[in-house]
Amino acid sequence: MSEMMWGGRFTKAEEKNALDFNASISYDCRMYREDIAGSIAHAKMLAAHGIISAEDQEKITAGLKKIKKQIDEGQFDFSIELEDIHMNIEKRLTDDIGDAGARLHTARSRNDQCALDLHMYMKRQIGRLSEKLIAVESALLSAAVKYKDVIIPGYTHMQRAQPVYFAHHMLAYFAMLERDFKRLEDCYEACDMSPIGACALAGTTYDTNSLEEAEDLHFSSVYGNSLDAVSDRDYLLQFLSFASICAMHLSRLSEEFIYWSTSEFQFIELDDGYSTGSSIMPQKKNPDMCELIRGKTGRVYGHLIGLLTVMKGLPLAYDKDMQEDKEGVFDAIDTLYFALDIYAGMISTMTVNGDKTREALEHDFSNATDMADYLAKKGLPFRQAHAVVGSAVHYCIEHHKYLLDLTMDEFKSMSPLFEEDILEALKIENCVNLRESYGGTGRKSIERQEAHASETIAKMKEASASWKEEMAFLD
Amino acid sequence: MSEMMWGGRFTKAEEKNALDFNASISYDCRMYREDIAGSIAHAKMLAAHGIISAEDQEKITAGLKKIKKQIDEGQFDFSIELEDIHMNIEKRLTDDIGDAGARLHTARSRNDQCALDLHMYMKRQIGRLSEKLIAVESALLSAAVKYKDVIIPGYTHMQRAQPVYFAHHMLAYFAMLERDFKRLEDCYEACDMSPIGACALAGTTYDTNSLEEAEDLHFSSVYGNSLDAVSDRDYLLQFLSFASICAMHLSRLSEEFIYWSTSEFQFIELDDGYSTGSSIMPQKKNPDMCELIRGKTGRVYGHLIGLLTVMKGLPLAYDKDMQEDKEGVFDAIDTLYFALDIYAGMISTMTVNGDKTREALEHDFSNATDMADYLAKKGLPFRQAHAVVGSAVHYCIEHHKYLLDLTMDEFKSMSPLFEEDILEALKIENCVNLRESYGGTGRKSIERQEAHASETIAKMKEASASWKEEMAFLD
Amino acid sequence: MSEMMWGGRFTKAEEKNALDFNASISYDCRMYREDIAGSIAHAKMLAAHGIISAEDQEKITAGLKKIKKQIDEGQFDFSIELEDIHMNIEKRLTDDIGDAGARLHTARSRNDQCALDLHMYMKRQIGRLSEKLIAVESALLSAAVKYKDVIIPGYTHMQRAQPVYFAHHMLAYFAMLERDFKRLEDCYEACDMSPIGACALAGTTYDTNSLEEAEDLHFSSVYGNSLDAVSDRDYLLQFLSFASICAMHLSRLSEEFIYWSTSEFQFIELDDGYSTGSSIMPQKKNPDMCELIRGKTGRVYGHLIGLLTVMKGLPLAYDKDMQEDKEGVFDAIDTLYFALDIYAGMISTMTVNGDKTREALEHDFSNATDMADYLAKKGLPFRQAHAVVGSAVHYCIEHHKYLLDLTMDEFKSMSPLFEEDILEALKIENCVNLRESYGGTGRKSIERQEAHASETIAKMKEASASWKEEMAFLD
Amino acid sequence: MSEMMWGGRFTKAEEKNALDFNASISYDCRMYREDIAGSIAHAKMLAAHGIISAEDQEKITAGLKKIKKQIDEGQFDFSIELEDIHMNIEKRLTDDIGDAGARLHTARSRNDQCALDLHMYMKRQIGRLSEKLIAVESALLSAAVKYKDVIIPGYTHMQRAQPVYFAHHMLAYFAMLERDFKRLEDCYEACDMSPIGACALAGTTYDTNSLEEAEDLHFSSVYGNSLDAVSDRDYLLQFLSFASICAMHLSRLSEEFIYWSTSEFQFIELDDGYSTGSSIMPQKKNPDMCELIRGKTGRVYGHLIGLLTVMKGLPLAYDKDMQEDKEGVFDAIDTLYFALDIYAGMISTMTVNGDKTREALEHDFSNATDMADYLAKKGLPFRQAHAVVGSAVHYCIEHHKYLLDLTMDEFKSMSPLFEEDILEALKIENCVNLRESYGGTGRKSIERQEAHASETIAKMKEASASWKEEMAFLD
Repeated sequence: MSEMMWGGRFTKAEEKNALDFNASISYDCRMYREDIAGSIAHAKMLAAHGIISAEDQEKITAGLKKIKKQIDEGQFDFSIELEDIHMNIEKRLTDDIGDAGARLHTARSRNDQCALDLHMYMKRQIGRLSEKLIAVESALLSAAVKYKDVIIPGYTHMQRAQPVYFAHHMLAYFAMLERDFKRLEDCYEACDMSPIGACALAGTTYDTNSLEEAEDLHFSSVYGNSLDAVSDRDYLLQFLSFASICAMHLSRLSEEFIYWSTSEFQFIELDDGYSTGSSIMPQKKNPDMCELIRGKTGRVYGHLIGLLTVMKGLPLAYDKDMQEDKEGVFDAIDTLYFALDIYAGMISTMTVNGDKTREALEHDFSNATDMADYLAKKGLPFRQAHAVVGSAVHYCIEHHKYLLDLTMDEFKSMSPLFEEDILEALKIENCVNLRESYGGTGRKSIERQEAHASETIAKMKEASASWKEEMAFLD
Repeated sequence: MSEMMWGGRFTKAEEKNALDFNASISYDCRMYREDIAGSIAHAKMLAAHGIISAEDQEKITAGLKKIKKQIDEGQFDFSIELEDIHMNIEKRLTDDIGDAGARLHTARSRNDQCALDLHMYMKRQIGRLSEKLIAVESALLSAAVKYKDVIIPGYTHMQRAQPVYFAHHMLAYFAMLERDFKRLEDCYEACDMSPIGACALAGTTYDTNSLEEAEDLHFSSVYGNSLDAVSDRDYLLQFLSFASICAMHLSRLSEEFIYWSTSEFQFIELDDGYSTGSSIMPQKKNPDMCELIRGKTGRVYGHLIGLLTVMKGLPLAYDKDMQEDKEGVFDAIDTLYFALDIYAGMISTMTVNGDKTREALEHDFSNATDMADYLAKKGLPFRQAHAVVGSAVHYCIEHHKYLLDLTMDEFKSMSPLFEEDILEALKIENCVNLRESYGGTGRKSIERQEAHASETIAKMKEASASWKEEMAFLD
Repeated sequence: MSEMMWGGRFTKAEEKNALDFNASISYDCRMYREDIAGSIAHAKMLAAHGIISAEDQEKITAGLKKIKKQIDEGQFDFSIELEDIHMNIEKRLTDDIGDAGARLHTARSRNDQCALDLHMYMKRQIGRLSEKLIAVESALLSAAVKYKDVIIPGYTHMQRAQPVYFAHHMLAYFAMLERDFKRLEDCYEACDMSPIGACALAGTTYDTNSLEEAEDLHFSSVYGNSLDAVSDRDYLLQFLSFASICAMHLSRLSEEFIYWSTSEFQFIELDDGYSTGSSIMPQKKNPDMCELIRGKTGRVYGHLIGLLTVMKGLPLAYDKDMQEDKEGVFDAIDTLYFALDIYAGMISTMTVNGDKTREALEHDFSNATDMADYLAKKGLPFRQAHAVVGSAVHYCIEHHKYLLDLTMDEFKSMSPLFEEDILEALKIENCVNLRESYGGTGRKSIERQEAHASETIAKMKEASASWKEEMAFLD
Repeated sequence: MSEMMWGGRFTKAEEKNALDFNASISYDCRMYREDIAGSIAHAKMLAAHGIISAEDQEKITAGLKKIKKQIDEGQFDFSIELEDIHMNIEKRLTDDIGDAGARLHTARSRNDQCALDLHMYMKRQIGRLSEKLIAVESALLSAAVKYKDVIIPGYTHMQRAQPVYFAHHMLAYFAMLERDFKRLEDCYEACDMSPIGACALAGTTYDTNSLEEAEDLHFSSVYGNSLDAVSDRDYLLQFLSFASICAMHLSRLSEEFIYWSTSEFQFIELDDGYSTGSSIMPQKKNPDMCELIRGKTGRVYGHLIGLLTVMKGLPLAYDKDMQEDKEGVFDAIDTLYFALDIYAGMISTMTVNGDKTREALEHDFSNATDMADYLAKKGLPFRQAHAVVGSAVHYCIEHHKYLLDLTMDEFKSMSPLFEEDILEALKIENCVNLRESYGGTGRKSIERQEAHASETIAKMKEASASWKEEMAFLD
């Protein structure tokens, strides 16, 4: 108990199992950079306002830098008895420099200190994540360009619907991740508000200046209400929502890569570097990475619902339940970071089998809509055209034909509106290239999308670089 | 089957239970305004580009307006056989006006039509919700102003920590809902993109102009990729994330109102209009509304996890699973709408018992931090000051005293640094008023928060009004 | 307010929006059978113990039976002002029969009354659900028998692994649903405990006998603690857990049916009665039912997490939050009921394309394990045999061959252990039929599974019939 | 790649990030006991059926025992390159004993091996958890007995409702955990089925006997279908459902302990050994353990939804997604283990303040129901009695009285049915002791509950001991 910094009114030490249960050092040690930078800024502000002496400030700063170096180099033993990263560092500092260390905690509390660290940690991690998101975007765009002539069947209900360019499919995922990046920007903004100065819950009677301190730590604003500052976890929930939606997008891409890799589809082949084998079946080449990433959607969703559950019904201001805010968020960050990193490599190295997708298109009815559109353009109301083509498909199935195999007599018997040019209208290339409506799969539409994608990537890189620069002081 | 608009290739009608299971008309009929407005705009665009005749367009427009009037007036019988709102309206239109009706579905599909309706529906509902959010914000600010002299114990861990102004507590919730409004704005923006023109999944070969059509429907942009346009449900997930976080905030306020209403606290009394009694215990006055709203957090979280589950691992482009996107979102909208509406009234009508909160403060140790700060300001390192006060509290508990009951001798025996002015420092008013750090509970800080709150409400009202105006064409 | 049965101490009526928000009649009217049966039993018990007169009991019983008839026939107008099913019925009864009706609520409270109704409701619904579960089990077994000679590729990681009998695949799902039935039995048991007599929370001072009353309502036991009786919702959470796992099983089967129905697989064809078409693409035949059922997994998971959220951190005994226990459970029951009903029909009517599965098997390496086992049986350590076959597969892919296309020279060059009988070992039929280990895909193993399945169905039917009989008094 | 046991057909090593992402050794090393015991049994079975030699079996057994000792003593370096616990052990074994080690993997696959390990692991952990559950049950019963004369206000809607014995409240939680134990027993049963012999997915052509092997490992049955055996995760979902419900129960108790510990309630005081202080507020004594346990409900719910999400829509048989089955379950086990351990100690050491609860009861209306019952017993219909008492409460509040403060004149003016004995009926002791209905809070009812609790604990201990004995072979 003598170790405990809050023990004054207690007559008995904490039970060992309670102490272990309470301690967060095993995971919050991740935030040592932020904790130290925060304390250095705090000492600076305290000294600037005459609350501690310049001498104390110097000792504190030097002492903290020494501790940072020790942790950087793996030379610092964390203690469970000291509960968390804040106490571990402060205790060591006080051991090293004496009373000056004991003055550092003036005009702050673990409540705002811990919130401060987490805000900075999130900003830094969002910067790191953004780089990986951009890497996947670049890989998707490159794949679109590389395989620009490949046409694949487009599916709805997993049934072949209409042919689309493979590039169009890749760019659909580009669009999803573009929205994810927008949400990540919103998250950065949500994290970019400093809680320091809220102290335990009500602010302080010291003549401090938390605006200065926040600016020193590169925050763009400060919480306007101290109760809110120590009890707000919205920025983490918003991040977990972003992460869940992004993981969901990756799960969809994974699903597609998995079935495209089956013997039945064979649309793509993943690089051996991103595949694994079987301990028993020598022929197997498994898309394990895709499956794992699809599966890890579960843990991200779980962390979101976990923190939502934690926060439900908690009274103001700080409750210990909130200590449960970190592990899930940290794991979500790691999960997404690795998943994006792997996807960037996996997309860049995969091979698309244009022969197989071509073969698929020659044996299906994905040009049926074009047949209906042909009739509609000749004046038949669309609903009636639809019915004619429905019967035609039915006829083909019974006669083991595809639409392009029909004779002109057969066409005519179905509708007198058919003329020779129907054959042209049903060609796969035309089905694709004539879909030049805005956002459609036509060539010009894709070129427009690609131009937009390039600009988007440039903007993303700019944002990412500015975040990195902003948080570089933590390194 | 003759009713079915997609039956051409089928040889057998859908089973009755399958048909019932498949139908969505029981809930998607909510979107009739959007469906009709969308079809009118579609016909206009088709006519403008010569795809249908001006005459057909006129018939379609008149026919749809007639149908809208019938539905508005409850004179339209929806049919389960026609599956959904789109088919119900189109079938009636075709029955009424013949071939022109059958031409309306040219260059679109249920996939983009249904997505279009939902985007518009969300924009309209976000407008409605924003009004209720603002009403709660106004009520919180009014309560802060009305009870500006009331001081309450501030809590951490549900233990009395430091006194705060009641206004400060209300303004903490104001800050939470201010963030919610920001997220709601992000949702509006996410919904404000038109999917029409994507057709089934690949765009169309017709010479359409979906930018014009979107502008006509007051959208600010159009999806750049048709596969994405029909398979994107991010805007709904983002809304459910907003709704979950907002519901969480209300659950916290509910928890506080519930215990503040207990016999033990008695800090507030809810108006009879928002309370209910017991069928067996005549003395009961239950804060049912607070409990219900706290409980309804569950359904909102459930809808979020529900839709995340639906979307996990779905291949492009449209899959029928996505039909599950509506009911949860609709219920979340309703739940939040009513919960906010009730909170606005409940906050406005509640009574705060300043006598009880005052009494509470006179019987606790929430001025202990100020005692430690007193010592620290006299030069004692904070950690040591903390220890002195810890012992003092322990001493008081054993001697059935509070800090202000201590004699100067007792003070002196604890630390020679104590002088007469300690008594002033420990007065509740001073504990509160001296916390003038940024965001603290001091009077000036609260005035600053209130000024900010007024400005914020004005801005919110502006945004809300512009949304309402933008979507007024649907009424 | 005059309508309210608890208004004595109130000076003001409930606000209209609060009243609407509070009311549960729109969904708890489902429990009218249970509420009426419960009240009849309560009156009987009260009369038997002299708490009400025999005359009153008679009036009550007759009055309630009349009300049941009215509701059965749709002749009862439910009122939102009366909040819930309990108040709606009691108010009508009192209007009809006077003071006797007002005596019915002696020695009970809405808290235990509502819990009683829900326990009975669940027991009845579990009976209904069990019939549908059995129907799916029967359909799976029939499909296994009907297509007993069909061999399909077995998959791991969606890669062809080893051939299995189609029957084996169906029986795997049989096993999953068999476990679901076991869990459903546990649910029935969990529901089969009466809370009546707990009153508001503490029991009653009347000389009642809740054991008699429970027996009269066919309960096998009574809650031993009144606080627990009114606040327990475990039985609902246990049901939602069952429902979530069962929905998950159906989502897996759905996934398989969906890809088996693709152009690429074509292993099965669903009956037209369980398929739908496209409004724009005439050739489409979509497995909508499978997709919808897969999608509806989301709502079931959502209801589970919803109720878990509601219950988190609720103090004893009854809190209004618990009113949120019904809608999710009711929807989960309906969802599962319809999903099972549809699956029973869909499995019974589908066609399995043995030709296609055969063709698939002739073009893959799913006999590679047998090649490795062949070598291992000849003494080569399995890990080395695995490596040899891995190289062989690699060789085949490069030379566009399958294993059975290899010449004896090629075999020999890979390992001198190969002899002529390798060709026999690699035949698909042998690969399947020789897997006669317990639970394997060999013919005898399947026969054993089928025999077990028949017995299991018989036992399930017995349990289901006994539940139905037990709850028939509610009809 | 040379390290990889499945690399035969691959031309390129796995990428480093893919390898790291893929590896599970960091958490599945927990199952080394199970993996080794499983392999020893497998070798025994293989030898018994002549598939490997007796000599090989001896080498394998000795080699594995040596490895177990090394791991037990922390002398084994796990390698990420070897992915998982199975490969780490097998590779070491093969390095140590040569070809015999390479023969161990005959007639099994990682798919069934990993499932086997997890089944055994769960059985062992359920045994450990059961001991902690019993410890909490014992503590609850002891607290009930220790404070048998303490009466507290019973609450509904957090409003004082009727007085109950403190013992009754403790026994309500006993009943919840009794149901949890029942569910834990169901989990044990669900885990007690061996998947070994299923091999990759289809069984094996070797003449093995998985029934013998399962019996050797103390399983009571064997999966009847190999596809199901490797893809079933129901037993984990069922466990997570149990864990979620149990965590929910603890969150409710936590909520009550937290508010009972407030200055406003002061019903209990937690031992210093289970409390912590504040870094800034010296007077604080925080119920951190209760808050943490309440908060950790979130992670348990999260793990449940996480695994449900993983399993949604997975095709048979094994998919890599399933590797995500362990971490959440392991964490749920640890969380529950520690939470129960702490609760056992916290309940045993807390102090109940009978004076405070008595004082509370003397200042409320929790005897109002008894006043209504008094009138009802004299013949007034209950609903009318309820109204009379409602007015009486209203009258008292206005005149600052409690019911026992009313004069007989006042009583009479409210209803002529009141006589002198009303004063006796309203005494707190009588309110409690006369509630002798089954499950009520009366003294005899509590004695009956306590007798039942003692018997239940004895039965639980028996079950727990038998599980421990059954799995002792793993130690």
